[in-house]
Amino acid sequence: MPNGYNGKILRVDLNNESIEVEEPQEILYSRYLGGGTLALYYLLRELKPKSDPLGPENILVFSGSVISGTPAAGLSRFSVAAKSPETGGFGEAEAGGWWIPELKFAGFDAIVIKGKANRPVYLWIHEGQAEIRDAGHLWGKFPKETQDEIRKELGDDRIRIALIGPAGEKLAKVACIINELKHANGRTGLGAVMGSKNLKAIAVRGKKRMEVADGEAVQRLSKRLKDTYEEPYFSVGNLGTSRVTTMFSEQGILPTLNFREGSFEGAEAIGGETMSKTILVRRGTCYGCFVRCKREVQVGKPYFVDPIYGGPEYETVAAFGSMCGISDLKAISKANQLCNIYGLDTISTGSLISFAMECYKKGILTKRDTDGLELQFGNTEAMIKLVERIGNREGLGDTLAEGICHAAKKFGKGAESFAIHVKGMPVPFHEPRGKVGVGLGYAVSATGPDHMEFPHDPWWATEAGVTLLRPLGIFEPLDVFDIGPQKVRIFIYLQQYWDLLNTLGICMFTAKPFGPQTINGIVDYVKAVTGWETSLFDLFKVGERHVNMARIFNLREGFTAKDDTLPDRFFQPMEGGTLKGKMIDREQFSKALETYYEMMGWDTETGVPKRGKLAELGLDWLS
Amino acid sequence: MPNGYNGKILRVDLNNESIEVEEPQEILYSRYLGGGTLALYYLLRELKPKSDPLGPENILVFSGSVISGTPAAGLSRFSVAAKSPETGGFGEAEAGGWWIPELKFAGFDAIVIKGKANRPVYLWIHEGQAEIRDAGHLWGKFPKETQDEIRKELGDDRIRIALIGPAGEKLAKVACIINELKHANGRTGLGAVMGSKNLKAIAVRGKKRMEVADGEAVQRLSKRLKDTYEEPYFSVGNLGTSRVTTMFSEQGILPTLNFREGSFEGAEAIGGETMSKTILVRRGTCYGCFVRCKREVQVGKPYFVDPIYGGPEYETVAAFGSMCGISDLKAISKANQLCNIYGLDTISTGSLISFAMECYKKGILTKRDTDGLELQFGNTEAMIKLVERIGNREGLGDTLAEGICHAAKKFGKGAESFAIHVKGMPVPFHEPRGKVGVGLGYAVSATGPDHMEFPHDPWWATEAGVTLLRPLGIFEPLDVFDIGPQKVRIFIYLQQYWDLLNTLGICMFTAKPFGPQTINGIVDYVKAVTGWETSLFDLFKVGERHVNMARIFNLREGFTAKDDTLPDRFFQPMEGGTLKGKMIDREQFSKALETYYEMMGWDTETGVPKRGKLAELGLDWLS
Repeated sequence: MPNGYNGKILRVDLNNESIEVEEPQEILYSRYLGGGTLALYYLLRELKPKSDPLGPENILVFSGSVISGTPAAGLSRFSVAAKSPETGGFGEAEAGGWWIPELKFAGFDAIVIKGKANRPVYLWIHEGQAEIRDAGHLWGKFPKETQDEIRKELGDDRIRIALIGPAGEKLAKVACIINELKHANGRTGLGAVMGSKNLKAIAVRGKKRMEVADGEAVQRLSKRLKDTYEEPYFSVGNLGTSRVTTMFSEQGILPTLNFREGSFEGAEAIGGETMSKTILVRRGTCYGCFVRCKREVQVGKPYFVDPIYGGPEYETVAAFGSMCGISDLKAISKANQLCNIYGLDTISTGSLISFAMECYKKGILTKRDTDGLELQFGNTEAMIKLVERIGNREGLGDTLAEGICHAAKKFGKGAESFAIHVKGMPVPFHEPRGKVGVGLGYAVSATGPDHMEFPHDPWWATEAGVTLLRPLGIFEPLDVFDIGPQKVRIFIYLQQYWDLLNTLGICMFTAKPFGPQTINGIVDYVKAVTGWETSLFDLFKVGERHVNMARIFNLREGFTAKDDTLPDRFFQPMEGGTLKGKMIDREQFSKALETYYEMMGWDTETGVPKRGKLAELGLDWLS
Repeated sequence: MPNGYNGKILRVDLNNESIEVEEPQEILYSRYLGGGTLALYYLLRELKPKSDPLGPENILVFSGSVISGTPAAGLSRFSVAAKSPETGGFGEAEAGGWWIPELKFAGFDAIVIKGKANRPVYLWIHEGQAEIRDAGHLWGKFPKETQDEIRKELGDDRIRIALIGPAGEKLAKVACIINELKHANGRTGLGAVMGSKNLKAIAVRGKKRMEVADGEAVQRLSKRLKDTYEEPYFSVGNLGTSRVTTMFSEQGILPTLNFREGSFEGAEAIGGETMSKTILVRRGTCYGCFVRCKREVQVGKPYFVDPIYGGPEYETVAAFGSMCGISDLKAISKANQLCNIYGLDTISTGSLISFAMECYKKGILTKRDTDGLELQFGNTEAMIKLVERIGNREGLGDTLAEGICHAAKKFGKGAESFAIHVKGMPVPFHEPRGKVGVGLGYAVSATGPDHMEFPHDPWWATEAGVTLLRPLGIFEPLDVFDIGPQKVRIFIYLQQYWDLLNTLGICMFTAKPFGPQTINGIVDYVKAVTGWETSLFDLFKVGERHVNMARIFNLREGFTAKDDTLPDRFFQPMEGGTLKGKMIDREQFSKALETYYEMMGWDTETGVPKRGKLAELGLDWLS
């Protein structure tokens, strides 16, 4: 038996407002570690297939990992998971911030929430205890007021709060969960699941010191991480994630005008360098991190933007910028703030608006449908208004809040061909025609397309990138347009790596390929914290376990191999930009999917994990 | 690209007696490391399928690894590989001793030998050079004379020599290759391949210092290995491998009377403790090893046994002892010496005699067939005479020397049901009815049943055993009789581990579970020697590569899933001993085979590795 990690899981049943503390056997932590993998363990055991994602039967899990809360930089991330109301399949979203370390200091690794409260409530967790408190006075309130009131009534302004805004309360299928007003578990509509349970917020505060097996090693590894940090080529610390905007535009892979084009003339105006020179007031950060990639921006006129809501990440810049044909960074920042205030996923929200704009352009939507908004690409005012209307579920915004498939169906007239989604979730802003491995990731991801779930092709397209992958036995760089068996192999190894990072809650800007934490360094760190004689072999099996468990979740919900696909647009030539004319070859892509299934130990036709594979992963119980 | 290992391969073509030195790209070493895996790389590329194993077209590879010759204990082992004349499939056998470190000091990692000399020759390798020398005067000579003469004519008595005896010259299909008179690459008949090439010996001498990437780490890890060594529970150093004889007999898993029974009344008389108290004169060892598990025994009367030929290992004790119903350790030692003198595999030879004894008992063989030998179980004289006759290929010995299938066919009258073999090679002396995972290993091994290719069930049947397997994510012990999916999973992981040990040339008595070298320690050591940022993930892929490449080798030769089986005897009840009545359930075993194929990424019906699996292992070139 492994030896060295004891933890607690908080179990909450909102139906009867009961609370229990579970102390799992250490073997559970060894096998699932935390994050979405631990969440899937509970979901697959306790959630009945075909449950209503917005019904009381859905289970909502907040999960850190065995290393969350320990001192190394980049461990601020955690997962929220449930059945997704946006896709109907496995829903998972990660966020950074300060919330998960605080939960660990309060004594818990994870919270498993069932049922629905018969009144608005919030959860207050501190010092190994938890209570369910009335949130009647908080319902309908924006995050800032909610946060202030909770801190005031509990008398501690260091309480960390994850909460939903009005969009979550109103069950918008693109609603997110926000902590510290600016860190979002953005995707798959989990804010609506929280809303459906009448759960406004989870407030946490703890003072427990984290115990680790080898304190000296933890300190040494944490220090080494800091000492060896160098800004990556795209200056994520200095210039934020949106530094890549101009670079992508030059490379022709900046999604523009609803993925019609790949270069955007306003790229520089909305990119990270401009942000730094104009509206940035502070570089923000997460718990214990030296990278400081987060942005805090301030705008006076014409849009008031308060730095307490942070600032737009790359995805948000692309969502409300190039995707909507808007080159006004202040407007984008406003849209970002509105999303954080209403509790909306910026990626899905921006994509929905871009989609609506294309429908408007094609005459599928008219001013009548938009309640008067002139929804041309580039119309800044209309974009901002539509964000608010989605958050408030008004008019066209109400339709869009139900998700892109629902909206496309309602619009009719061929709107579906402009809905750039997989499994019902809009595609994030990494152009698969310019990095084809990303396309494979979009197609096979159980959550729908997720830019935080698999690594992007350019990583392995250079000698330097490949050097980082040496522990995986990868020696040769492959072209970004390649989608042959060797690309699929690398994709699979990196998907497992990425799923491991998410499971452990490690931020990619502190881990290779962007940060100083080497792949083997992660093993050393897990050993130091837990005392387990683990290995990269063992930890990668956890990543593989995550992929397989999420797959099984979706199969139970009725998903099939047919759902592992890309929108037609990516099999059509790009209409503008540096890569104009580039498209994905449909046949090669099908072949890659088949190869992926085969390499995964899944049936090549149905994509169902074989019994042997499940048994090999210790997942016999899912056969 | 990896960085840190440069090596040389010696290529010999005996057809025209030409010699070349190849300096492979480092990536080749990274992917294949050495041993049978590196050998398979050459065999699969350069040996035409369906070649005559005793024809000049067969390729014979002697291979160490990237870590052979460096200071840690237990690195004295190497592989010889070729197409096997005993099975017609992949032939591989490992041996310890002093030969491979010397080859490394002489500047080479491996030797790839093709063709057939038109006269007896030997190979002389020293200081990065090699020459082919006449061996006319050595042909027909026994190992001691051969060794003495070569050392004398080359003027260096520290030359290390791997050679064949008369059995190899006469193409006995159970002939082995011997170094230092007592270390045998025993199985799969590779001595005959050497004989078929007219190659009597390979003499090596080198003074090159091994270069390592991190000398301090190599020293530290080597010292730690030594400092942390404790005798395992079966006292392999003090009492030799045959210490287990009595233990196995008590447990009912000592193969007795051609696998009819599992306990032997003479077990104590032939076991390691008796050997230590009676005929042992010295504990022998291999290069740089502190375990000293080897035996050197001396017998005066009635059989002269010289300690220069070592002493019997457990397998040999069982082969000529319990299998033949013989409880005379001196006679067993004589048989061992004869095998080393004639160059015979003790396992196959003992098994052949035991088989013949059963045929004699059943009346299938009579005194006429045996040239007068009274071949009852327990007849010591007859046993010893038959060893010599096999070595000299006389009468019944000639028939047996052609292999167990050939002999069974020739005997007729149902003899085949007494031939306890898989793929034409006799089964070594680990009773699969008492450790069913071993049975799975026998069935699927590409070389035919090999006790050095997979770990034995009791390893993982205890809490302590399982602790050693923590880096593989194995937490729970399983019963020795279990053959369900979790057992198959552990079997697969350990098969890859074992194949990795063989590939690197690491002795199991210095590596876990018997020795102090932990599974993760092996990764550290490979890193220290090569400078590669490798991992257990990466190294286990090499083990997996070995299993798959050997499989492909056999498929090319016409083997099918039907060859992955056990002799009927193991599906029948044991007739005596502690486990009397125990048998393997045929249906469960079939199911386990299917599970094994599935977990391996092979077709569940045909056992053919899928394209996806081969691509994942970087073996696309074998599809």
